Amino acid sequence: MTYFPNFGKIKYEGQGSKNPFAFKFYDADRIIDGKPMKDHLKFAMSWWHTLCAVMADPFGAGTIDRSYGKTDPMDIARAKVDAGFEFMDKLGIEYFCFHDMDIAPEGKTFAETKKNVQEIVAYIKSKMEGTNIKLLWGTANLFNNPRYMHGAGTSCEADVFAYAASQIKNAIDATITLGGKGYVFWGGREGYETLLNTNMAIELDNLARLMKMAVNYARSKGFDGDFYVEPKPKEPTKHQYDFDSATVIGFLRKYGLDNDFKLNIEANHATLAGHTFEHELRVARINGFFGSIDANQGDEHLGWDTDQFPTDVRTATCAMYELIKAGGFTNGGLNFDAKVRRPSFTFDDLALAYISGMDTFALGLIKAYEIIEDGRIDSFVLDRYKSYKSGIGAEIMNGTATLESLEEYTLKNGEPKVESGRQEYLESILTQVLYR
Amino acid sequence: MTYFPNFGKIKYEGQGSKNPFAFKFYDADRIIDGKPMKDHLKFAMSWWHTLCAVMADPFGAGTIDRSYGKTDPMDIARAKVDAGFEFMDKLGIEYFCFHDMDIAPEGKTFAETKKNVQEIVAYIKSKMEGTNIKLLWGTANLFNNPRYMHGAGTSCEADVFAYAASQIKNAIDATITLGGKGYVFWGGREGYETLLNTNMAIELDNLARLMKMAVNYARSKGFDGDFYVEPKPKEPTKHQYDFDSATVIGFLRKYGLDNDFKLNIEANHATLAGHTFEHELRVARINGFFGSIDANQGDEHLGWDTDQFPTDVRTATCAMYELIKAGGFTNGGLNFDAKVRRPSFTFDDLALAYISGMDTFALGLIKAYEIIEDGRIDSFVLDRYKSYKSGIGAEIMNGTATLESLEEYTLKNGEPKVESGRQEYLESILTQVLYR
Amino acid sequence: MTYFPNFGKIKYEGQGSKNPFAFKFYDADRIIDGKPMKDHLKFAMSWWHTLCAVMADPFGAGTIDRSYGKTDPMDIARAKVDAGFEFMDKLGIEYFCFHDMDIAPEGKTFAETKKNVQEIVAYIKSKMEGTNIKLLWGTANLFNNPRYMHGAGTSCEADVFAYAASQIKNAIDATITLGGKGYVFWGGREGYETLLNTNMAIELDNLARLMKMAVNYARSKGFDGDFYVEPKPKEPTKHQYDFDSATVIGFLRKYGLDNDFKLNIEANHATLAGHTFEHELRVARINGFFGSIDANQGDEHLGWDTDQFPTDVRTATCAMYELIKAGGFTNGGLNFDAKVRRPSFTFDDLALAYISGMDTFALGLIKAYEIIEDGRIDSFVLDRYKSYKSGIGAEIMNGTATLESLEEYTLKNGEPKVESGRQEYLESILTQVLYR
Amino acid sequence: MTYFPNFGKIKYEGQGSKNPFAFKFYDADRIIDGKPMKDHLKFAMSWWHTLCAVMADPFGAGTIDRSYGKTDPMDIARAKVDAGFEFMDKLGIEYFCFHDMDIAPEGKTFAETKKNVQEIVAYIKSKMEGTNIKLLWGTANLFNNPRYMHGAGTSCEADVFAYAASQIKNAIDATITLGGKGYVFWGGREGYETLLNTNMAIELDNLARLMKMAVNYARSKGFDGDFYVEPKPKEPTKHQYDFDSATVIGFLRKYGLDNDFKLNIEANHATLAGHTFEHELRVARINGFFGSIDANQGDEHLGWDTDQFPTDVRTATCAMYELIKAGGFTNGGLNFDAKVRRPSFTFDDLALAYISGMDTFALGLIKAYEIIEDGRIDSFVLDRYKSYKSGIGAEIMNGTATLESLEEYTLKNGEPKVESGRQEYLESILTQVLYR
Repeated sequence: MTYFPNFGKIKYEGQGSKNPFAFKFYDADRIIDGKPMKDHLKFAMSWWHTLCAVMADPFGAGTIDRSYGKTDPMDIARAKVDAGFEFMDKLGIEYFCFHDMDIAPEGKTFAETKKNVQEIVAYIKSKMEGTNIKLLWGTANLFNNPRYMHGAGTSCEADVFAYAASQIKNAIDATITLGGKGYVFWGGREGYETLLNTNMAIELDNLARLMKMAVNYARSKGFDGDFYVEPKPKEPTKHQYDFDSATVIGFLRKYGLDNDFKLNIEANHATLAGHTFEHELRVARINGFFGSIDANQGDEHLGWDTDQFPTDVRTATCAMYELIKAGGFTNGGLNFDAKVRRPSFTFDDLALAYISGMDTFALGLIKAYEIIEDGRIDSFVLDRYKSYKSGIGAEIMNGTATLESLEEYTLKNGEPKVESGRQEYLESILTQVLYR
Repeated sequence: MTYFPNFGKIKYEGQGSKNPFAFKFYDADRIIDGKPMKDHLKFAMSWWHTLCAVMADPFGAGTIDRSYGKTDPMDIARAKVDAGFEFMDKLGIEYFCFHDMDIAPEGKTFAETKKNVQEIVAYIKSKMEGTNIKLLWGTANLFNNPRYMHGAGTSCEADVFAYAASQIKNAIDATITLGGKGYVFWGGREGYETLLNTNMAIELDNLARLMKMAVNYARSKGFDGDFYVEPKPKEPTKHQYDFDSATVIGFLRKYGLDNDFKLNIEANHATLAGHTFEHELRVARINGFFGSIDANQGDEHLGWDTDQFPTDVRTATCAMYELIKAGGFTNGGLNFDAKVRRPSFTFDDLALAYISGMDTFALGLIKAYEIIEDGRIDSFVLDRYKSYKSGIGAEIMNGTATLESLEEYTLKNGEPKVESGRQEYLESILTQVLYR
Repeated sequence: MTYFPNFGKIKYEGQGSKNPFAFKFYDADRIIDGKPMKDHLKFAMSWWHTLCAVMADPFGAGTIDRSYGKTDPMDIARAKVDAGFEFMDKLGIEYFCFHDMDIAPEGKTFAETKKNVQEIVAYIKSKMEGTNIKLLWGTANLFNNPRYMHGAGTSCEADVFAYAASQIKNAIDATITLGGKGYVFWGGREGYETLLNTNMAIELDNLARLMKMAVNYARSKGFDGDFYVEPKPKEPTKHQYDFDSATVIGFLRKYGLDNDFKLNIEANHATLAGHTFEHELRVARINGFFGSIDANQGDEHLGWDTDQFPTDVRTATCAMYELIKAGGFTNGGLNFDAKVRRPSFTFDDLALAYISGMDTFALGLIKAYEIIEDGRIDSFVLDRYKSYKSGIGAEIMNGTATLESLEEYTLKNGEPKVESGRQEYLESILTQVLYR
Repeated sequence: MTYFPNFGKIKYEGQGSKNPFAFKFYDADRIIDGKPMKDHLKFAMSWWHTLCAVMADPFGAGTIDRSYGKTDPMDIARAKVDAGFEFMDKLGIEYFCFHDMDIAPEGKTFAETKKNVQEIVAYIKSKMEGTNIKLLWGTANLFNNPRYMHGAGTSCEADVFAYAASQIKNAIDATITLGGKGYVFWGGREGYETLLNTNMAIELDNLARLMKMAVNYARSKGFDGDFYVEPKPKEPTKHQYDFDSATVIGFLRKYGLDNDFKLNIEANHATLAGHTFEHELRVARINGFFGSIDANQGDEHLGWDTDQFPTDVRTATCAMYELIKAGGFTNGGLNFDAKVRRPSFTFDDLALAYISGMDTFALGLIKAYEIIEDGRIDSFVLDRYKSYKSGIGAEIMNGTATLESLEEYTLKNGEPKVESGRQEYLESILTQVLYR
């Protein structure tokens, strides 16, 4: 049986093809810099948007039926596994990501929930056998259930903190069982609605405590992968504590979590924070926190998380440039935390959207390499800072300069010379590489 | 001779007064919680906006003549001192703040600039004698001159870094000479226009180096005041490194600058970063970085720094609440980094604007105390987190809880109970206190 | 039986009261300018947020149970009527507003839906008897059902247009039956997700056609009330055609709908469009389109419709100033299109929120009158334009001036004199009136 | 003598070229759809940014010297003409645009200003002889001088209105003298800073009066070109009356100016208003107001007019698609209202920036044609609305349908069927065309 009858294995047909169900740019095995594209990109399917989301929005009911022809919640959960593996197989996607509550229905008690998750995890594990499909990362959904209305790790209720800890324990167990090398914290309700009722100090301390417990537990179980925090500035809460890369890095360092955690950076969250995607990746990279990527795209004129499939090749190129400069993914990968628009309600649209997103990042990878090979931009930047290689610049860098020595220098040296930043020229190089 | 002939000493006349040149709410000597209002608020005049700015904007020439009837730049600089002291005296303002290039004209050489600054500093010092007027903080203007087009501490040119260091040295000297207890870093060009030409890692390291040199120098000269970084997310550059409180605190901790630096938080910069003013103050407070305040107001629908005089009493109240909870100012104060609108081009408007701003914060202080005395909000918050005082909550707080112990607890405890956050009720209390 | 056991009739107890279930500022029968407050304000309850919404958000399930102890959909619908009338009675609210699909469940066929609505309309009508409760306006929900995913009047499917027309016909019938004097078009899906698949010209023409049909039908049935368009710039769609007041007024004039339509202006929609609430009201007023108000409040840092209960008295004052200058409401009123925050999940919070919102607008009304009585702002504005009363100004106004005559005048007249706009002074008057 | 010694005539060298001073995509004489690229695009040089702007910003002094080696203001003005014509000649640009105050210095009296402008106009006219260089449009700068602080046509001072009218008369004369076929109104100060001091009704009526006078005058002098309003939502004022395309079209229709005026649409102004560039163009097009284009690019994360040189080929493609669908330019053209970044301070950067911008729009034109030739998107849209061609859809379109007839239809017809909007698929076609 098939859930996606209208398409088979999606193949690379190249730029000339007008077959909607074919890749135009993503050629999985094409070698780029000694490695197949697929190993650079490590595409992952997001369980939630791809298999669960009905595409409701605050003003409208869902447009996609997610019952997969079943009625019993556990049957539906198993059907999702089947559909997901068929989808990954057909799209040539080798990784997936999930929240505990995506894969299995919540039970009436925590014990039942736990059992449900374990049962589906076992089923997923059995499906993985004999395939190339791997778990990229797991996580726990600590934001949907009303019990988390005030947060999970940052809840004002200790019992809720305990419940969140319990879910995390089981999600870590599931991650380990499925061989995942990453575990993500997205703080969906870790923030506040109003400062009027909020003790921010306790909440942040507790959030760190929860992460520390998770690290301790997972390491005791032999987990040697990475933990990730996924920054987001707002939505659903008015203010989310994990605002952006810089904020999260400061938090992780403050609480001594910086050896175990890296960042999972999402494009749309970057723009909601007023940053470009590449900015967030750059900040993570130069601080040693480059971890994993949630690939999607926002709409700059909309103030919420639209989670669109990425189509902006320029941005994808800048992102892939950061990836390459970071030395590629270690445990991370490129997860499509993206959903079809509400009126794109057919299962065919799911495939068409993934094809579009995968082609976008394939192009981004190709173009990023071309920029590096072209060399003009990198050598411009290298040259631009050359004054720090010797003389007064070297003294500044090696710590021997002081305000006094620099004043003495300035009094002798006179007015400094500066060169043009050549922004427009550098931008034109980027255009040139993108469109040749 | 007078520069402000249309008004004398501005007095408190109370709410009923319709005299434009009178305070309606700011009663300097009124005791609040054992201290006069003026000692809570520590109002400061900003030299730049108040004495120098001609109110040009990117689409229009200045509307205010700042020659004060003189033609020689040093005469103008001295006239500004005279005008400034007359203004502070008439408004009852006891502090001022300045950049080096506000008080004296830039010379043809650095030596000449230095001499100009020293001469005016001496003149200011002489004017201070026998008055209550004090320097709140000094700083160096490292953004206006074209040499800083690529940044100062973050410039790609070592000579520019050296020039900036020289200006800082002299601005620190000036601050010490004038008895200032604060020195501010506002990184006007410490950021980037495009990542395409930027080595962010070097730039951030260098920025920290410059700050470290400043601390070393000032401490060696006996300065025991506070250094401040003033966060701002963007403008003039596309991205400023000192984005917001959380980012700056992370930066200061990373580079070991956290013992010498606090934050100088500006309302309008907070809103440009997507935060409320009180959010930025709260983040600073709970991390021990609450330092000083730049009081002004932005326009939420405009994406640039409008630096309006504050009129929003609700926000001022929330800000003063944070001030009180932080234990009041130590070395900091409340500097009006605010300017009149371009069409408010008379010197009378300057006074009317300060009166409006001072009344706004006076009301904010009064109302913040009333909220604390009222007690309903504080006690609601205290009660809200009580579950962490004992039982499982205490185990979370004291570090004995683990994921395993919390799962065990959850399995027994069942579904947690949560209470309403009562946001609307708490907001109504705030309205009640504000409008009674 | 009661749905709100924790509070009885909410009474005015004045500013000193600490009783959460009492008005502090709204004194319904207090005479202001010869009319009771309640007749100025004409508060209305929104059926959807108050009786139906479960407070789900895109990341979380609902927190409020809306079954009212029933299981059958029609029983629930009737229970909502009972609850609504109890709520209005206890709060002293004399108006309500509804969408067809708020009051009755959608049936399996349109015929069934129609019957359901008619049945509940009859029940509502019976409940209204002997009370002061009136319908402010009715409308049809043309955005929730998946059939409207591409719009209703702007759908690319004629059958969907027809369905929308059918719903509107019945919603107009319901409005007439219940004596409503207003009918609202909020174009929830009248917009586009992407220009790539959109014929904007057809869509706008069709939208006008639908409105014209509605007018024709309603007038033929004797409806002599007002039609309203409610502007909103985006959400749920990427772009909504009814962007803001100016856009809608232009649309209504273009299609000859300006005699039958006025605007229903919502505060939060104004801010999403980059305007202040008072701006939107002013634009409507001076163009003769001031109709009705949806009272709520957005969060300036959040890019979606938060529909918070209004607490900003300054904004409410500016809004009520426009209301008074417009001569008060004719057929319109002040509908609370506002919802409690997701964590404010108790029925008590509903009442506390309405109390807060009603007090806010009561204060706004009081303060707006005080500003007009104070007279300083109005007379400043009157005086500011006096140059158009005579001389060259009068020639400009009466159409006798030409470019040539004005050049001649300028050549003689020389440099014009301008006066300060006195913004800061005028703002301080507002503060003074607000806080006395 | 040359002002641009580092480059000669810029030639098309194609995609492979690494010569910075060469076009990679703009091949002026390449025939596209029967017409050379240059006649499709009609590139224009903006006098102000290209020849006058010193690249100051609110936090920094200018970085470009614009004295052209002269000291006398009229000599400088003539030097700008020489430099401008050399620049246009070298870049192959055949049009230019100017404000009166760009080309000549303001005199001490209006008479002197008038004389200055006339003198330079004559000089420009002499330079034009024997070249292909033409005036695209002229305009008057009614925002820089302090006299316009409260607006020009919307000033509260009649004398200022008269002064503005005088400037417009002379700018129209200059436009006619130079053979220009367009005259632009950009309402730089036509808006308000605060509603507290503003009579919006008078201001809008007066703005229309000024435009009417301009039309009457110009038509009497034989001007048969187009008038344009250039929409902008804010900056420099808090609110500009010409907010966006829809607002301006409504204004022009209200005041009967729609026969003489079209729109001059700027990309960056569109984004400041919360729209895409293509949205603004589409609104203008379907309403018959498509006129001219100000080509530049904003930064979506910055809230002010950055006026960057356009580099976004996707947006340029969507804009050129609208141009083609509008039937190409009539009197309008593509003016680079764009400036180099402040650190790009050399004259070489000016050329590099223009090359980048011209290549971007050349690519946009090429790609827009390819999309139309590809046909998949256009035919999808055509097919999508086919239900309005016959049956109930045709009745809706031809005005015979009523609410009653549509209800009858719906009762028979049952639930409408809708198709997927296929957004992701259509986006992937765009990517395919862009990157092949």
